[in-house]
Amino acid sequence: MTDFFDKHHERLEQAIEAARTRAAWSPFNDSPSRKIHGDAVEKGLAAFQARLNQPFEIDQPGTIGRIGMEISPYTQEPLGISYPKVDVDVLYEAAREAIPAWRDAGARTRVGVCMEMAERLNKNSFECANAIMHTTGQSFPMAFAGGGPNAQERGLEAIVYAWQEMARVAESATWERAFGSTQVKMQKRYRLMPRGVALVIACATFPTWNAYPAIFANLAAGNAVIVKPHPLTILPMALAVEILRGTLRDAGLDPNLVTLVVDSSAEPIAKELVTRADTAIVDFTGSAHFGRWIEENARGKPVFTETSGVNSVVLDSTNDLKGLAQTLGMSLCLFSKQMCTSPQNVYIPRQGFRSNDSEISFDAVSETLVESINGLLSDNARAGGVLGAIQNENILHLVERAEELAPSRAKLLRESKPYAHPDFPNARTRTPVILGLDISDNDIYAREWFGPVIHFIAADSPEQALQQAASDAKQFGAINSYAYSTDEKFIERAQDAFGDAGANLSINMIGPMPLTYAAAFSDYHVSGLNPAGNATLTDASFVSGRFRIVQSRMAVP
Amino acid sequence: MTDFFDKHHERLEQAIEAARTRAAWSPFNDSPSRKIHGDAVEKGLAAFQARLNQPFEIDQPGTIGRIGMEISPYTQEPLGISYPKVDVDVLYEAAREAIPAWRDAGARTRVGVCMEMAERLNKNSFECANAIMHTTGQSFPMAFAGGGPNAQERGLEAIVYAWQEMARVAESATWERAFGSTQVKMQKRYRLMPRGVALVIACATFPTWNAYPAIFANLAAGNAVIVKPHPLTILPMALAVEILRGTLRDAGLDPNLVTLVVDSSAEPIAKELVTRADTAIVDFTGSAHFGRWIEENARGKPVFTETSGVNSVVLDSTNDLKGLAQTLGMSLCLFSKQMCTSPQNVYIPRQGFRSNDSEISFDAVSETLVESINGLLSDNARAGGVLGAIQNENILHLVERAEELAPSRAKLLRESKPYAHPDFPNARTRTPVILGLDISDNDIYAREWFGPVIHFIAADSPEQALQQAASDAKQFGAINSYAYSTDEKFIERAQDAFGDAGANLSINMIGPMPLTYAAAFSDYHVSGLNPAGNATLTDASFVSGRFRIVQSRMAVP
Repeated sequence: MTDFFDKHHERLEQAIEAARTRAAWSPFNDSPSRKIHGDAVEKGLAAFQARLNQPFEIDQPGTIGRIGMEISPYTQEPLGISYPKVDVDVLYEAAREAIPAWRDAGARTRVGVCMEMAERLNKNSFECANAIMHTTGQSFPMAFAGGGPNAQERGLEAIVYAWQEMARVAESATWERAFGSTQVKMQKRYRLMPRGVALVIACATFPTWNAYPAIFANLAAGNAVIVKPHPLTILPMALAVEILRGTLRDAGLDPNLVTLVVDSSAEPIAKELVTRADTAIVDFTGSAHFGRWIEENARGKPVFTETSGVNSVVLDSTNDLKGLAQTLGMSLCLFSKQMCTSPQNVYIPRQGFRSNDSEISFDAVSETLVESINGLLSDNARAGGVLGAIQNENILHLVERAEELAPSRAKLLRESKPYAHPDFPNARTRTPVILGLDISDNDIYAREWFGPVIHFIAADSPEQALQQAASDAKQFGAINSYAYSTDEKFIERAQDAFGDAGANLSINMIGPMPLTYAAAFSDYHVSGLNPAGNATLTDASFVSGRFRIVQSRMAVP
Repeated sequence: MTDFFDKHHERLEQAIEAARTRAAWSPFNDSPSRKIHGDAVEKGLAAFQARLNQPFEIDQPGTIGRIGMEISPYTQEPLGISYPKVDVDVLYEAAREAIPAWRDAGARTRVGVCMEMAERLNKNSFECANAIMHTTGQSFPMAFAGGGPNAQERGLEAIVYAWQEMARVAESATWERAFGSTQVKMQKRYRLMPRGVALVIACATFPTWNAYPAIFANLAAGNAVIVKPHPLTILPMALAVEILRGTLRDAGLDPNLVTLVVDSSAEPIAKELVTRADTAIVDFTGSAHFGRWIEENARGKPVFTETSGVNSVVLDSTNDLKGLAQTLGMSLCLFSKQMCTSPQNVYIPRQGFRSNDSEISFDAVSETLVESINGLLSDNARAGGVLGAIQNENILHLVERAEELAPSRAKLLRESKPYAHPDFPNARTRTPVILGLDISDNDIYAREWFGPVIHFIAADSPEQALQQAASDAKQFGAINSYAYSTDEKFIERAQDAFGDAGANLSINMIGPMPLTYAAAFSDYHVSGLNPAGNATLTDASFVSGRFRIVQSRMAVP
């Protein structure tokens, strides 16, 4: 058997250093360019196409039928892939049985195997990107970068954090002190113990980015993992389960350490899985509503959630209105705003936004932003790369409900329309609707509109906007927040206000990097301080509770 | 203002090294000897006596009356001390208001202040020991060692773990990478954020040993702490709150970071405090029943519990039956078995216990143990030092219920009797009752009998005993377990079985160290793998979730 730890040792050391300094470090290239990857691009597409209209076989125990009805947002046709429908009791038993040998293999072996898994996921990034594209609706470049290398690096990061926490625990100690006149000597042994079977519930729109860290943190700590994908987005997780099981088999370990449970929207089983006595850990990405249910009903189990929130942009002042409009316009459109980190509420000073030395009116600012977005989307090919497709029908209804707010409750600053995707004429598409609101319309904007719905909110002052945005973040959740200001004092106040609300803040970001981009080893994702989730990718608390320590001590005569 | 961090820096470094190696390290001397401490002994007693029949003033906000009705188990007279009865809303508001400055003081300052607090607690160990003795019923030497230096070191350990977790988080980073042909550069800032107001619920019998770690882990991480002592054991926590508030004041910080809420057995308020929206963290030591209620009702808050369980002793073989009987006999008696780590169920092979080359019958082994205990307790002065007093009336009823099981369900191997305490003729005392049971009497022994109730259980074999003891630990909880064997294979099986059950194991311990002794920086206390609690003193997971990280990032032009 290959010593996977030795094989990946140099990468592990680099990753530890990156996590320490939080400087930029990427072992995997996130450009999908043919120049870099050669025929891997075509091979990945072919591999994806070969999956279509076929049963996806997983040789895991407890298969009692077939299930799965994914529909591509690009073709609006079924993928035609069926997955094993499982007897959950049988699956859990198999997972439980696999744990002792995995535990006894030790942290070093487990971490080596996990590092190998991450590398193998990376090698399959193109098949995975097509799977993500045709389930989530992401554009191909985003599905590749965000769902491939960026997600794999978040997984790697979790492995590295788990390794560091485990490596810090002494394996043994000799202990000696006097009691009265007698010297007592003991040999002590400390063992890392997994908690058991861990459940990882993945989301519909960005499945791998959150699931990989959860899966790897659990595995590295010695647990077995049962992956439950969203019923609309199964294939990316099935591919991962296949690769992880293959790695385990090649390492001479029980593949049932990683298994897949597929359910349907009609018969969801997440609640049943969360509350099972033998579910030891729960990771969840998805709606704030269900995340809260899990937090409240997991009853003492460790729970790690990443849900959603109301991400705001506060405009105070800038020296580069054009750059701002381009950068912000792009991030408002990206993946049709179907990301938990997308900005949604753009606060614009009612009396005018300072750009260089002039004051730009609310109307002029919003016009500039709308024009920037219109320019970005004027070409269908470019629109396809930016907006991608709409994941499901409910998001279309959300857009309709938003538009119905005008004219009585809102001003329609930009209408939502389908656009013609250059490659997929039948794609489910919508450009963003932009509503003009007043800061008093809190009942409308102070919740997540998951999809292409954007609010431009008139505020009396940047200060008022800041307080409102931070207060909404605290109360309703927010992952990211954004501010533009040339005033150092204002920037400091923004850092404090959003810091208190637990929403990460990006300041004066202009350029080609999407505002929503979060880099593994450098950007903490979700603070745990507001309702947008209780866990962070990745800090010590994301990994340290996934294993326990049991001790024995023996008298040394 | 003194730089408390610099003052205690050397001790901090030593503690970090001790936590790494887990070798013996004690900054505080746990002998109450006059030779070491001089007139501190008398001064501590005098300070305690001066507290009696007086209001205990704490200058915290929200005082609306007086409360408190502690009774000394030694005199069975009221201590006559009243404490502030508080308006909880006012107290929480004051605690919340104190947090921002404490947060902004930074981890270094907070850790320095906490180290100073630990040292000041240490200087008051004699007053504290008298307070513990006359509330819990512990003997004076135990109240001093276990409730003083040993507990302070557990607190120090929590500070050190919190410090290490916080120090690992980079404060800032410069991050740079290319997006397309453009180089993007950002300055990032990472801030440690407290969760808010932390609630620490202390227990009646060993208040400081668990409360200090919880208090310090919370404070070091930037939270405010509200201490709710058990209504029968208030004084030790009131003394701690007084000292901690004084340290904060001397450091120029808001003393309301540490406050005291006293309730009564008639009107308990723990549930109300646990479920308050502004209680951010809960630490609890006490009954498994209420611990479970907290775990299930804290609804997403971080909860750290240490409750109780069924600690077993499995006898396989020994080369030193006399030493075993002395050591085990002592630990079965210590503090009248009112400790969460006390052994309770002693499994003895029905067919005989191998001692050197002979087989000793169940009856002979139990007789040897009973004789050892009788010898230990034959002198009232020594009995006083070992047994101490019975904390409350309910424990007497428990002893009665145990005795009523004989003769129908159990054989009475040793009767419980009051003994005459040499210094306190009115002390509430009982020597242990020992019941002879069969391994089939699981309904009787497979739960905690908190008090001087011991079971000698006849098992078909050491192997059967081991399986039963481990299974009970898994199902009903256990913190410690004990085995005696000269067979390496059996020892290995015992390590595995109790390891799986999450019960720490002590093997072949003979000598002056009580079996129940657990050393800070070396012994992990509670595994979190069975119902005896979900938290460990101290591992990374005990501290890492008590603070969060919020990030901001700014474009560097």
